[in-house]
Parts: sequence; C-alpha cells; structure tokens
Amino acid sequence: MRISTRSQVDPFIVMDVMQAAAAAEAEGRHIIHMEVGQPGTGAPKGASTALTAAMEQGALGYTVALGLPALRQRIARMYGEWYNVDLDPNRVVITSGSSGGFILTFTSLFDTGDRVGIGAPGYPSYRQILKALDLAPVDLPTSLENRLQPVPADFAGMDLQGLLVASPGNPTGTMLDHAAMSALIDATKAQGASFISDEIYHGIEYEKKAVTALEITDDVYVINSFSKYFSMTGWRVGWMVVPEDHVRVVERIAQNMFICAPHASQVAALAAMDCTDELEANMDVYRANRAMMITGLREAGFTRFAPPDGAFYVYADVSELTDDSRALARDILDKAGVAVTPGLDFDPVRGHHWLRFSYARSTQDIAEGLGRLKTYMAAR
Amino acid sequence: MRISTRSQVDPFIVMDVMQAAAAAEAEGRHIIHMEVGQPGTGAPKGASTALTAAMEQGALGYTVALGLPALRQRIARMYGEWYNVDLDPNRVVITSGSSGGFILTFTSLFDTGDRVGIGAPGYPSYRQILKALDLAPVDLPTSLENRLQPVPADFAGMDLQGLLVASPGNPTGTMLDHAAMSALIDATKAQGASFISDEIYHGIEYEKKAVTALEITDDVYVINSFSKYFSMTGWRVGWMVVPEDHVRVVERIAQNMFICAPHASQVAALAAMDCTDELEANMDVYRANRAMMITGLREAGFTRFAPPDGAFYVYADVSELTDDSRALARDILDKAGVAVTPGLDFDPVRGHHWLRFSYARSTQDIAEGLGRLKTYMAAR
Repeated sequence: MRISTRSQVDPFIVMDVMQAAAAAEAEGRHIIHMEVGQPGTGAPKGASTALTAAMEQGALGYTVALGLPALRQRIARMYGEWYNVDLDPNRVVITSGSSGGFILTFTSLFDTGDRVGIGAPGYPSYRQILKALDLAPVDLPTSLENRLQPVPADFAGMDLQGLLVASPGNPTGTMLDHAAMSALIDATKAQGASFISDEIYHGIEYEKKAVTALEITDDVYVINSFSKYFSMTGWRVGWMVVPEDHVRVVERIAQNMFICAPHASQVAALAAMDCTDELEANMDVYRANRAMMITGLREAGFTRFAPPDGAFYVYADVSELTDDSRALARDILDKAGVAVTPGLDFDPVRGHHWLRFSYARSTQDIAEGLGRLKTYMAAR
Repeated sequence: MRISTRSQVDPFIVMDVMQAAAAAEAEGRHIIHMEVGQPGTGAPKGASTALTAAMEQGALGYTVALGLPALRQRIARMYGEWYNVDLDPNRVVITSGSSGGFILTFTSLFDTGDRVGIGAPGYPSYRQILKALDLAPVDLPTSLENRLQPVPADFAGMDLQGLLVASPGNPTGTMLDHAAMSALIDATKAQGASFISDEIYHGIEYEKKAVTALEITDDVYVINSFSKYFSMTGWRVGWMVVPEDHVRVVERIAQNMFICAPHASQVAALAAMDCTDELEANMDVYRANRAMMITGLREAGFTRFAPPDGAFYVYADVSELTDDSRALARDILDKAGVAVTPGLDFDPVRGHHWLRFSYARSTQDIAEGLGRLKTYMAAR
C-alpha cells in the first residue's frame, strides 16, 4: 500500500537520546533524565479518588462532544480566579489533550496550503501536525534579544493565515507580557490571520503570572491542557477556548473526529482542579529546581540562555562548545550519565547548537545532574 | 476569524432526536432509547479494579506512542484465539478510540483530494473525517440484495485510492463473509487502492464469527476499538493493525498528533480482555434483544430489513410508510415515546426512507419499546 506524502513527518531526535539512555540503564548505569517533557508526579490524589468513586457509580460512556458541563463551568470559573477574565463556559471545549486541541483548531481555521507562522524554536509537533493536515508551517526564527519569542517584525508582509505562539514557551520557558502579546495579536489581525495561543504551561510560572490572550481579545483560539500544572500527561485531557461563533463548528468537528475526550479523564480533571495543596507542592519543587538550574548551569559553563519565566526547561545556546548538538548530547549521556535534548527537534535550522535541559523531576535528581554536568564540563 | 471550508461538516440528524427525547424526559415523559449507539453497560468490573490499583502504584504518564507493550501483545494473542491468525504484536497500534484510528489511517494513506469509497449506508463520521482532512469520500450505494454491503461492481472503474468497509456494519449489522471480503480486497488492490477494514463490532456476532481482513491479507489497515464488545465507549481506546512497513510511519504521526492513547484507558482495556464472563453476559442480553427485535419489528409492521449478523442495530426500509424519515422519527418519539434514528445520517441520499433501531440497552427496555411500536403502527 502506498504511504501518503502528508505523513512523512520528521522523527524526534530526542527519541534517540531516550533509547540510548534506556540502553545505558539496561546495562546498569544510573542516568539523570533532563530530557523528559513531563512532570515526574502523577495526577493529584483527589483526582484518583474521584475517578474510583465514579467508576463505582456509573458507566462512564460517551460524554457530549464539548465535554462534561461541570468541567467546562469549572474551567470558566478558573479564568476569573487566575486572570480576572469573565468567561462564558459555552466557549470552553474539552479536548483529548492539547494534541486534540491542535487538530481541532487547525481543522476549524485552515484550509489546505494555508500558511501558519510558528516561532522557532518551538514545540516540534506544531510543525508535524500542520504538515499532516496539508497545511504549511512557516518557521519564524526568534532571537535571544527577544527572549526567543516572535515579534511582529518577524512576520511582517508574510501573508500568513495564522500565527501560533506559546507563552511560557517550550523549549525556552520564556513568556510574552501583556504588551508583547497585544502587539502580536494586533499584527496578526492586521494581516487578516487567526491568532492561536498555546497556554499549556500556564500555572507553572515563577516571577509573575502568565498573560492569557483572553485578557486582550475574544477573537482568539486558546489551547490548554491538564498535562503540566495539573500533572496529568497520560490522561489526555485538555481544553480550548474559542470565539462564540466558532463553538458550533468546533463541536461538529469534535463529534466526528473524537466523539469526546476520555470520560474518566474528564472526571479526574474536574477533581484535580481543587487539589491546590498538592499542585502547589509540585510548584515548590519546580521553583527550587529552577533556582538551582540557573545557578548550576552557569557554574558548569552553560551561560547563554534566557532565564525561564515558566514551564520547566532551560534552552541554552552551546555554539561556543559545538556545532553538533546531537553529538554533544550523546557525549554528555555517555560521559556524564545525563540525558539532555538536542535543539534540532525544536529548531531544525539553528538547533544544531542548542540544548534543552528539563527540570521537571525531583530536586535530588537536579542536584545530582548539575553536579555531573559541572564535572563533565571541567574535564572537557 | 475565518472558518475553514474543510470544517463545514454536516450536523448529526440524530442530535435533534436526542435533544427532543431529552426535552420530553425533562417534561416527565418516559422515553425508550433505541437511538443510542453505545452499550448501556460500563467497562467490566475487572477493568475498574485494575485501574484503581494502577492509580495507587504509578504516575500514569505518557505511554510510548504505539501503546503499552503488554496491551499490544494481548491483542495479538486475541487474533490467535478468535481467528487463528498469527499476528506480530509489533503491527498492533493502540489508538485513542477508533476515531483516533481513522485519523491515523487516513493521514498515513491518503493525500489531499484522494478518493475513498465508503458503503452507503455507513457510519456518518467516515464521511466527515475524510472531508475534514480534505479527502474526498465517495458514497457507494449498496442494495438490500447485497445485504447493504458494497460489492466490487459498486466501484468498478472508479479510480479510488482507498476502500473502507465495516463488517458487521453500522447501521445495518450485516457482515461480509470470507468470499465477499476477499472479492472486495482483490478488486481494491486491482484498482491500486488501499483497503481499510473497520472491525469495531467484532465480538458482537450471533450466527457465526465475523471475518477479519487479516485472515485474507496482511496488506490492510484494520481498525478496532474497546468501545463495543468490551463496553468501554467513553474510555477512548482502540487499536489498529497495519502492514509491517507502515508501523514506523504510523508511529511518527501518532507521536505528533496524539502523543499516546489515554494511559488509564490502556490499563483498563488490558484487564477488560480477561473479563470473559461479564462480556459474555452482555452478549446474552444482545442475543435476547436481537431475537425480540427481529420478531417484534416485523409484527409491528417494519418488515424490510436484513436480519443483523452482528452489532446491535436493525436498519429498516420504511419507504412504504414515509418519504421523510426525520418526520417519522419525530412522530414515533412524540406518539410512542420511542427514540429512533432517521437514516439520513448514514445515507444522505436514500436515508430519507430508512430508520435505525438500536437494541443495545436492557431487554426490558427493548420489550417495552417494541410494545409501543406495535401500538403506534396499529393506530397509524
């Protein structure tokens, strides 16, 4: 059988790192995992308890396509609590993770060949999902001066149909403040394009609260998830906020492409939203890890990065060390026993001299990893 | 913001029925639900127990994109037990329900504008997912003589890039036997097209075992799910079997478009596969319901249908009664208090004189529903 052209997406370079790390562990070596993109913690206890009770009570069949009404309402309430934004629950759409949100968003907004701007570096799957839907991702190279976030000049006159930003970003952890986000929204609208805001790392912020695009406009698609702050990666449940006049369209696509997000995960997510103590305890760990990373990486000799405003990554320019981040990552794994991610997944053009360090795991692991990195760099 | 052309999918007509039924119930009326497409039962008890234990033990983070190895192995073993087919577990891909399977399959096999034949009547979302991916669904009108399944003559010379069949089918419940399936596969290959077999209702069969396309060829995409026989609709977990040389491509698309199927659902599904007693008890209910339906619908005056070989539907030609199945369904709901599905969702051209009756609920409900239908038809 023929394989389609649209399915020829790039492999993840990080998979090579993960396989090499697994092989090393199989040989008995101890590896510190700074390559992973997910919390080491599971769903909050209250989420498991609520799901166990729900399984005893009901069949957990299909929910309506837009999701459990109680969950949509609770999310809308959160926008009031977190951002002082008054949000109509009818604009909230529960999705099968942010992955489902991207498929719905791109399908709802774009037709074949449409050009969608994405900041480079950025989450690798933006590019691949766009390609799989026969849309055209347009990489917008960002600069360390702009803290690795796009600015209007980066896409002036580019005739885009859409712009997708992430704040806090992956792999950078940097954020767009109110003025920067507003400028991007204005420039996008001036180009007649649709604005999409990936807010999956909201809640994991250090110095100040992240800005949601909904503080600035209702004419936006916001994508979010329970995977990061709520520590529920494997549950595949997230949400979108869409303009009021797009709800029916998104509902119909969702009915057909997904039927609904996993019912059990929706039940667990609703309960997770009230597990503040446990979630804030996770935040204390990230906060401690971040402080150690900023100091420790610099001490080790990784000095060229923007301190992360949010998320749990540091993205460092290693051009003084190498022009082959893949080989460097391999060498660090082999010699220091620390798994890190080469930048190539996030930025195919310039990623060959960048590395992403994740600090999502335990503080003990971070301390050990930083120690190993210092020793490695000193011996280099 | 602009709404795309590809997202302009048709609404489900059955939603109107479901809303009208809900409104009637809100007014205190008792409604028998013969419009639903899912079991009334929940996941088997063993599935819930396994998940509760797993939640206590681990974080349930992302699984690898192809799914839990133990689940892939267990599914491969099932092909030996059910069909005497020796299946390599590496060809099994765990998906986010059959919905996820369709998105992966269509993306992997087809490029923009490719023509994919689907039997009419058929599952409405085939058509809509294809459209959303900018592919071209080609309705193949089937006949009661061919038990509402396509035959090679239906697509001779049509220059299709793919053919998608379902056996047992929805809304018909009819099956393709070994010879009929073989003929379709041969004719599809002769046209240079890819063959896709939707086997979601396998396990729910009455007179004989359904034939899997894997008994005939390895050069096929098979799509299945835990939603029907395993009674886990809301869990959004299913699987595909793909040719060996397609596994890597599907893996990469899945990594990007889904990351993984819900971890909790995969754990529950693995346990469900060993809950034979409970699943067979469900089958006893379907079997009793089916016998009552075949007799009862005929007695009521619905005589033009092919007795279902599998699934839990009867699809009846009501052209002697009406040319407007939507109005008839509404009248049956209003006067008899029985919700049924007009054929228009399954066959936009001829569905105006067909109705689908589901018998997925309790035998008591089916008996009551058939009684009401008899009274309604006698008074007509």
